[in-house]
Amino acid sequence: MMFNSIRRVAIVGGTHGNEWTGIYLVKKFEQFPELIARSSFEMITLLGNPKAIAANRRYIDQDLNRCFSHEDLSNPTLTSYEEQRAKAIAAQLGPKENPQVDFIIDLHSSTANMGLTILPSSTDLFNLRLCGYLSQIDPAVRITLGIACHQDMPMLRSLSPLGCTIEVGAIAQGVLDARHLQQTEMLVHAILDYLDAINQGNPMPVPSSMTVYQAIESIDYPRNSSGELQAMIHPQLQFKDYAPLQDGDPMFLSFTGESIFYREEKVVYPVFINEAAYYEKKIAMTLTSKQQFKLDAT
Amino acid sequence: MMFNSIRRVAIVGGTHGNEWTGIYLVKKFEQFPELIARSSFEMITLLGNPKAIAANRRYIDQDLNRCFSHEDLSNPTLTSYEEQRAKAIAAQLGPKENPQVDFIIDLHSSTANMGLTILPSSTDLFNLRLCGYLSQIDPAVRITLGIACHQDMPMLRSLSPLGCTIEVGAIAQGVLDARHLQQTEMLVHAILDYLDAINQGNPMPVPSSMTVYQAIESIDYPRNSSGELQAMIHPQLQFKDYAPLQDGDPMFLSFTGESIFYREEKVVYPVFINEAAYYEKKIAMTLTSKQQFKLDAT
Repeated sequence: MMFNSIRRVAIVGGTHGNEWTGIYLVKKFEQFPELIARSSFEMITLLGNPKAIAANRRYIDQDLNRCFSHEDLSNPTLTSYEEQRAKAIAAQLGPKENPQVDFIIDLHSSTANMGLTILPSSTDLFNLRLCGYLSQIDPAVRITLGIACHQDMPMLRSLSPLGCTIEVGAIAQGVLDARHLQQTEMLVHAILDYLDAINQGNPMPVPSSMTVYQAIESIDYPRNSSGELQAMIHPQLQFKDYAPLQDGDPMFLSFTGESIFYREEKVVYPVFINEAAYYEKKIAMTLTSKQQFKLDAT
Repeated sequence: MMFNSIRRVAIVGGTHGNEWTGIYLVKKFEQFPELIARSSFEMITLLGNPKAIAANRRYIDQDLNRCFSHEDLSNPTLTSYEEQRAKAIAAQLGPKENPQVDFIIDLHSSTANMGLTILPSSTDLFNLRLCGYLSQIDPAVRITLGIACHQDMPMLRSLSPLGCTIEVGAIAQGVLDARHLQQTEMLVHAILDYLDAINQGNPMPVPSSMTVYQAIESIDYPRNSSGELQAMIHPQLQFKDYAPLQDGDPMFLSFTGESIFYREEKVVYPVFINEAAYYEKKIAMTLTSKQQFKLDAT
């Protein structure tokens, strides 16, 4: 896309009602709006799923962060609580083809050891250069691209072509970890400063290339014919998100003690290992490939 | 109490429906009963809260593990789901004054870094000698005594004067951690072997004393007049369960960045730091004192 300027930025927390890092950061920003005020654009803050937040659950009827496909948003027969919330949020921030905000930051956490992960809304070069900037100022920041990574996705962040999800972990649901809250807040400030600097005509320096983790496929747990778990993440793989997984490395450990190994020549880098909310999505982990991405094409 | 012999032992998992370690261990034991079979006593396995397990929540109406006071069990007007479950479990394992099982092992997990903690049902010397044995064979095992520690307590384990809760962590709710599952299983086997050896007249050696952590009081998070959190566990205290907390050490970090310090002369050892389920109980941590307990009085 052609880039002119960022006029409005939205920060969303509590898209999942039991991920407290984003919820308490948004509450803090609403109490102290000067923290996120920048002179060149307007700020919106939003708690995505108030009923799920009150219930301290990921969702009430279904995962809100899968309710933002264009098709579902325009289907008037979908009326679950989250489907209604998605339409209300899309009315406030969207629509996708002509959004009212230019950049969305959606704050999440994971029981997987995701560290500080940025999941950009699209592979728009503007978005990726921001990612390069963030990973340059903090080498702990990792950039991960979904199996599909564009505006047809059903995530809240897809309401705008620019923006990202911030995913921090490992952290349990329904708790606050001060370190993760501080790190997420620093990332938010870095993003806002970056956008403001571009608006001001003084863009921040961006590296000529960056490492990205490109999702390839998701792997389910071993299950029996009734769908019941037969194995767990192998102890050697637990919390090893972003570490290389090579032919012969253990992936799962069955309840009867047998190890199940990775058997492919290609070295992959698993992420979202043992995310609590993904058992029901039949995802034990997502395999990624580690790639260098050139950013100096502009 | 006078000790004769252990005739029946119960292993309970899923007293909290989102603590998967115990749930999957009980399922494993039910699939492979020979694992927990011992020649000198009978075994019972039980999933405490089936509806909460199906919903992957701690409870449906209220915390089942606070429904076992003698008063509540004998009150016919209490009819919530968990109050009904408590009465059904008490009918199967109890009553407290004449229980049908001699020893209850209740399997739990925590988002706090509890490591491998044993919470004995009572300070009966039989119970404490078992604890001494367990902490001797694995120095990672810690023995923690509740503020009150007797059969008047409302926990499931109080149905029998002998027994304990096993509390492992840190682990998020609704996930399996293979290492924690293996460690819990080893503890269960060690307990069963210990009980069986006593029944056989060949008791295991017990150390002459052991370290116990005696709970003193629980501390709430700083809150405003509406009850809303104003601070988090301080990053320097997070995951530091069982480490000494001394005068001047930080305990909390407010959302506006101020540290709140421990200001008492007495050195304490906090446990259950940042347990997710305890926010609603207004417990940020429980302070304990570290003591030596003599076991050779018999």
